[in-house]
Amino acid sequence: MARSMALVGFVQAQNCSNYAASWRHPEAAHDFLTLPYYQRIARTLEAGKFQLMFFDDRLAMPDIFEGSHAESVRNGVRVVKLDPLVVLATLAADTTRLGLGATMSTSYYPPFHVARSFATLDHLSNGRAGWNVVTSLNDSEAFNMGATGSIAHDTRYDRSDEYMEVVLGHWNAWQADALTLDRDSGEFADPAKVSRLDHVGEYFRSRGPHTVPRTPQDHPLIIQAGQSGRGREFALRWAELIFAIFPNLDFAKRVYGEIEAQALASDRDPESYRVAPLIYPIVAESQAEAEDKAALIESLAKPIDGLALLSEALNFDFGSKGLDEPFSDDELDAISGLRSIRDRVIKLSGKANPTVAEFVKFSARGTIKEAPNFIGSPTQVADGLEQWFTEKACDGFVVGASHVPGAYVDFVELVVPELQRRGLFHKDYPSSTLRGNLGFSGYRAP
Amino acid sequence: MARSMALVGFVQAQNCSNYAASWRHPEAAHDFLTLPYYQRIARTLEAGKFQLMFFDDRLAMPDIFEGSHAESVRNGVRVVKLDPLVVLATLAADTTRLGLGATMSTSYYPPFHVARSFATLDHLSNGRAGWNVVTSLNDSEAFNMGATGSIAHDTRYDRSDEYMEVVLGHWNAWQADALTLDRDSGEFADPAKVSRLDHVGEYFRSRGPHTVPRTPQDHPLIIQAGQSGRGREFALRWAELIFAIFPNLDFAKRVYGEIEAQALASDRDPESYRVAPLIYPIVAESQAEAEDKAALIESLAKPIDGLALLSEALNFDFGSKGLDEPFSDDELDAISGLRSIRDRVIKLSGKANPTVAEFVKFSARGTIKEAPNFIGSPTQVADGLEQWFTEKACDGFVVGASHVPGAYVDFVELVVPELQRRGLFHKDYPSSTLRGNLGFSGYRAP
Repeated sequence: MARSMALVGFVQAQNCSNYAASWRHPEAAHDFLTLPYYQRIARTLEAGKFQLMFFDDRLAMPDIFEGSHAESVRNGVRVVKLDPLVVLATLAADTTRLGLGATMSTSYYPPFHVARSFATLDHLSNGRAGWNVVTSLNDSEAFNMGATGSIAHDTRYDRSDEYMEVVLGHWNAWQADALTLDRDSGEFADPAKVSRLDHVGEYFRSRGPHTVPRTPQDHPLIIQAGQSGRGREFALRWAELIFAIFPNLDFAKRVYGEIEAQALASDRDPESYRVAPLIYPIVAESQAEAEDKAALIESLAKPIDGLALLSEALNFDFGSKGLDEPFSDDELDAISGLRSIRDRVIKLSGKANPTVAEFVKFSARGTIKEAPNFIGSPTQVADGLEQWFTEKACDGFVVGASHVPGAYVDFVELVVPELQRRGLFHKDYPSSTLRGNLGFSGYRAP
Repeated sequence: MARSMALVGFVQAQNCSNYAASWRHPEAAHDFLTLPYYQRIARTLEAGKFQLMFFDDRLAMPDIFEGSHAESVRNGVRVVKLDPLVVLATLAADTTRLGLGATMSTSYYPPFHVARSFATLDHLSNGRAGWNVVTSLNDSEAFNMGATGSIAHDTRYDRSDEYMEVVLGHWNAWQADALTLDRDSGEFADPAKVSRLDHVGEYFRSRGPHTVPRTPQDHPLIIQAGQSGRGREFALRWAELIFAIFPNLDFAKRVYGEIEAQALASDRDPESYRVAPLIYPIVAESQAEAEDKAALIESLAKPIDGLALLSEALNFDFGSKGLDEPFSDDELDAISGLRSIRDRVIKLSGKANPTVAEFVKFSARGTIKEAPNFIGSPTQVADGLEQWFTEKACDGFVVGASHVPGAYVDFVELVVPELQRRGLFHKDYPSSTLRGNLGFSGYRAP
């Protein structure tokens, strides 16, 4: 078959899926503080041959709205955030082929630590680790982690570029044949094949040698979600899986084409990365049944969800302005969080200065409409995914869950077999490594 | 039965046990980069009803000796160091009663991160997490983690005291009944029961609220190994399990008594902590067989092991002085690493200014003599442990491995049943939590 679609489960180490209201669903599991909750998701995704399950993260609960965590806590708006790497590691023992990705911020950890943690996971999972590189975006995270404010948007990416150099440098410290393990001669490893990095840069210093021998994938897969100008440049420099938010097919095709053009212009082979947008599929045996499910799911969202999550993502208190008050140019410029949301709202609303209400409406933050919904029978959902995939809007999908674990169970039982029948998605894992299962022939030397 | 002895497996996420030469043992497993290596150890310890398995850590390989990592790499002197928390998390899925502890330094991670990581592990393991609190001790660690040098000895403990206040503060952020999870009312949790910490101290600031609800143990068990004056004060303030190096029975009884007296003088109930020294048991069906095993094990050590490990632990290049050259008073004062080693060498050698050779000999660093050996038949080893336990030299033992996994298999098969027959060690886990299995009735409010 032609190259398989990439399917990625977008999972949260918390009380809800990316859809904050999901915990209110009548079938939502509430044992999110226990291992079985995560094992069920992982086993479901592996049964469905998903290439990857990856955990989102933030280092604070949403508490910028009205300067308080009270409403987020009361309404369960993504307030629990376990350490995703710890959760992920527990799943290495419980799966054999599923890729295991976690978000870790470049803002508050020494790069040596991140290099070591993900290299460890790559070993223990036999080559299935992925790192979703994020820069922390809001002041709440900074306050928790000991800083006095978040890092400015553009500086954040300059720092992160250097951060990546250090992490990848450490991952290259041990040559593949450095370990000799010879009891007779007493030689454990060849010191000529283990190097100090000796990095002294503008933002970081780290000496080495790294303490983890070269990993099964040479290095963990790099995932990145930068969509704004500087963020896209960063993603095209480093990422192998580009996680996107595309509101509709036309937008997706245009941006996918832009990414490809930008890649070619910067000597990046478009075969060396995959672009996968977030979607919310809602599938049932019949269209009518799926629409009933969708109506129930949509009814779970509350206005506070969007306001709390917009405030978190844009590092701006949406409680500080009236609903119909437009953002000034200065306020729009000052947004230091996810600028791709701001840009999308301006584009979709057709307003240079959207109001708070327009931000809520056009970002659809906190609702199931934040990302495209594919609602219908298995055939209908597969039709939609096939169109996006074959019309070059994406290389695969990051599947968000309207509720957990039901949304994944439905997708794996109903949609995956249909995609496989059509030859769009692999019938089994072709490789033992995450990179291999995404169809990459090897790793791209940094 | 009376209170059970505590048995703790002292495990390394690396190429050797704490005994660096262990990888050279003919029966040593060499798959230390894979999950089965660690699963074998965990399953063995759990079959033996050990209360805890805990991972040591350092953030650099030993490379202070002669200013280079070459000899450590060539000889495999603890050069591989995986992220112990990632390894430990994988074991949460593979065990049900064994306590799971990992070392994490207070030097280079924001306390919010440490609080979140161990709280996550406590949830996923159903109350089996333990944190071994260390302060990073040498310049190699500092250089890897982005600092220009390690933190001075006494400042290190002042910082760590404040660090503990922040971590424990975050662990108390959610009251036990904060979660309501009411789909009908839409109330997820009671905001009045989730608090910001708002810590602004001399060394740290961290706001909160913590993003992890209260854990099964209320908070993970605290393990600490401080033995020097300031270190012991720190341990008595915070630790529930005090990890010690006692060279012999008399030394142990004296120090155990000192700790008890110091505890009573500072209103710390001696029933609220356990003292467990490192030992290397070498057991076989007969004494003669055990002595043969010990001879083979001892023969594996090389002089470079001790020199590299002493340089690492004392943050001083032991290659910079001749073997018979004594340390000056200034040099002894300047030692910023594990001062308990320095103090022990001075005490055991009877020299105020020991030479390099005397440091090697009396610290026994890098040899199996660094900690007491219990060599003999099951009865003989049990006799020795019983004497230490009943004569108030300790509350249990941290069992180091002469080789992996053989040393643990031998101990569990041969010594544990004998200890159980004598009523010294529990026949099964009395509790589902680590703290319960150590015989603590509850958690000690910080």
